[in-house]
Amino acid sequence: MQTQKVQVMAGSVRRLLRRNAYGHVTNLLAKLRPGDISSIMLELPDREQSSVFSLLMQRDRQLAAETLKVLGLEPGLDLLGQVASEEISEVLQELETDSAAVFISALPEEVAQEVLEHMRVKESAEVRGLLQYEEETAGRIMTPRVFSLCEDLSVSEAIHTIQTTQDLEMVFYLYVVDGRNHLVGVVSLRQLLMVPPSTPLKKIMTTDVISVSTDTDQEEVARQVALYDLLGIPVVNAENKLVGTITVDDIIDVIEEEATEDIFHLAGVEADDHISTRALSSVKKRLPWLVVNLATALLAATVVALYETTIARFAFLAVFLPVVAGMGGNSGTQTLTVIVRGLALGEVTWESTKSVLLKEITVGISNGIAMGILAGAVAYLWKGSYVLGLVLGAAMVINLVVAGIVGTLIPLFLKKINIDPAIASSIFVTTFTDAIGFLSFLGLAFHYLPIS
Amino acid sequence: MQTQKVQVMAGSVRRLLRRNAYGHVTNLLAKLRPGDISSIMLELPDREQSSVFSLLMQRDRQLAAETLKVLGLEPGLDLLGQVASEEISEVLQELETDSAAVFISALPEEVAQEVLEHMRVKESAEVRGLLQYEEETAGRIMTPRVFSLCEDLSVSEAIHTIQTTQDLEMVFYLYVVDGRNHLVGVVSLRQLLMVPPSTPLKKIMTTDVISVSTDTDQEEVARQVALYDLLGIPVVNAENKLVGTITVDDIIDVIEEEATEDIFHLAGVEADDHISTRALSSVKKRLPWLVVNLATALLAATVVALYETTIARFAFLAVFLPVVAGMGGNSGTQTLTVIVRGLALGEVTWESTKSVLLKEITVGISNGIAMGILAGAVAYLWKGSYVLGLVLGAAMVINLVVAGIVGTLIPLFLKKINIDPAIASSIFVTTFTDAIGFLSFLGLAFHYLPIS
Repeated sequence: MQTQKVQVMAGSVRRLLRRNAYGHVTNLLAKLRPGDISSIMLELPDREQSSVFSLLMQRDRQLAAETLKVLGLEPGLDLLGQVASEEISEVLQELETDSAAVFISALPEEVAQEVLEHMRVKESAEVRGLLQYEEETAGRIMTPRVFSLCEDLSVSEAIHTIQTTQDLEMVFYLYVVDGRNHLVGVVSLRQLLMVPPSTPLKKIMTTDVISVSTDTDQEEVARQVALYDLLGIPVVNAENKLVGTITVDDIIDVIEEEATEDIFHLAGVEADDHISTRALSSVKKRLPWLVVNLATALLAATVVALYETTIARFAFLAVFLPVVAGMGGNSGTQTLTVIVRGLALGEVTWESTKSVLLKEITVGISNGIAMGILAGAVAYLWKGSYVLGLVLGAAMVINLVVAGIVGTLIPLFLKKINIDPAIASSIFVTTFTDAIGFLSFLGLAFHYLPIS
Repeated sequence: MQTQKVQVMAGSVRRLLRRNAYGHVTNLLAKLRPGDISSIMLELPDREQSSVFSLLMQRDRQLAAETLKVLGLEPGLDLLGQVASEEISEVLQELETDSAAVFISALPEEVAQEVLEHMRVKESAEVRGLLQYEEETAGRIMTPRVFSLCEDLSVSEAIHTIQTTQDLEMVFYLYVVDGRNHLVGVVSLRQLLMVPPSTPLKKIMTTDVISVSTDTDQEEVARQVALYDLLGIPVVNAENKLVGTITVDDIIDVIEEEATEDIFHLAGVEADDHISTRALSSVKKRLPWLVVNLATALLAATVVALYETTIARFAFLAVFLPVVAGMGGNSGTQTLTVIVRGLALGEVTWESTKSVLLKEITVGISNGIAMGILAGAVAYLWKGSYVLGLVLGAAMVINLVVAGIVGTLIPLFLKKINIDPAIASSIFVTTFTDAIGFLSFLGLAFHYLPIS
């Protein structure tokens, strides 16, 4: 549905709600897809979102549940926060287990327990099962309801099983297991149509199945699905027994989530600090990062403090401090961003590390010389001192080379010691470039400016 | 394949290549998936990558082509750059049309023409067809070979068509067209198995098909696939005729590409500046951004220059300039990152804009007061001047509120006038926070510091 149409529909919903024409709202929405209802709800103020959600709950729990899923965690929790735990159970048990687990694990502990108790026994057991696995692992994001066929079946028996199994909307890979549920192969629905009905599955299945284990990190799961162009991936436990599957639509969510995490971490924002996060919560999430930054800024300030007497004599030096800090910081950020993203996409290997470092130093020297000449010329023209020009130019070269080196090595080192390079690199890199930048600029100025 | 295994295999390949045991290398690789061969190649130095690629070309063009695709554009172009255009044609014509088009459009113009001439007529025509569409549109990334069924067929005829069509590895959606190739519906393979063979397709197909048009932006295509949890999406032309499909594996590439683009743009790096990009090329890509940054840093410097005489008297003011700039810049970056990502994920609507702005101002005031007290206290303890403490604290509050406001409004405004908010926001926001930060800090200092 197009943005414009979404806005028109949202307008209609608001007008109907104001006239208490609830029946009309329900009829309007019942014909739409969860994705469209979600888009419309996001155009409504909080109070009207709740009204729409309770209308959906009354009319079609399945649709309400799917809409909740598309809305996402934070807006979803806001809506669930306004209804009793019985109702939360009723809507969440309509969701796929992995999605239900996402919401339940985010609820306050005692609410979560109540919700699980009110859910149907089967669904509740499945959710509890998933919650035993670590967050962000394959076990946590899989759906435990997996359709599999025994290797001893014939093709006609397999087709009959498919025809008579309920709730089997999307099968693209048919996983084949042995008598003890070990994953032994995979066939496609089309393969079944291409061979004589009496053929045993064993004969036509592909035995080389790509699978992940329950404790595989979700980022690694996504990488495999992308690397091998899969539509879904089976999950096995430690004994290679088939315990779930992850479909590509969940993988897309993982990829978007991980990209958001990296983007946010690079900027010093926590991964769950979204548009819809409440202000107080955002304050709490961002303040620690600002405090850390204050500490590192003070570190850079102490470098400046070393040269206070020089600045007292040549106050125009202070004018160029933001230029030195800005150029070093920007150049370092460019390098570290390329490295951090390369690490996330799995493009950086140990073979490439050497050449990457060499390249970034080359880039640092080249850009340093170019920017040094430019900045030096500006300083000379502005303040009429060619010594100042040379000092600023030289400081720029030093700073940009340092930016290239630390911008490359810091993320690689953090990755090596298993710290997320996205979250910590920029703080270290800019502290380095600030300190080295001020030190080289003010140090050179101290030595070479004519004391007159 | 696990990282460790990849490294072991890469080691074996290197040893075999050094012993000129080419047959062994070929046999080793021929059993692997393109994704694994690609991972192994990335662990090898350039020269050995070329050797492996030519061995693949001799043994299995299809495998060579698939490996090239997984390797990605830049490493792929490096390999293709070393072989004649006839060979490029031979490998690219084995790829899906959309992947072939990606490589061909990146080749130098005259090489591209030669490659197209050497390709098989059908493949070459298909690639030329795609290249007529704009980059980053659905038309450019679709595969034009689309399997469709006529609505007049019965289910048994449809199944027969599926059984007898070559090259139909992955069908999950069966698109249904009318006699003039207009897209009119969709059925799943499983639906065909659930109804009597004589049922006409028309009776069982879903007529409400989600499709995109050839000129839809790829980011919008990805958004729809994610929103509706699809495995593929049909592409229609202006007359609603079915001209291609885009599968979810291509969507994953788009999502990763767009995320990389946003991450890079936020850091002032061009989207195609990868780990494997040559140094000179990276210099050219990053230098313009640094020049723009120099210009804006000089703008901030002129603000400092206004207060040169104040600094000459109170040199310790210079010490706190990096603190003022750093805190404002970081806080502004936090806000703009949340907004830019929210825009990219479609979370920001006009309804939410008001509340987002209000929230970010609240966050700015709260964090400003907290950081103002902290920084003011540090300044007081360090320099023993309570006036300095108050001045720095007040400047911090002003700067963080400004950071919240410009961090929200600038990306929204850029989006409104159709400029990518990721690429331009940070430069404007930090220029604002630097200038306002220096102005408020030095301005307050000028007025309130005791002239003694």
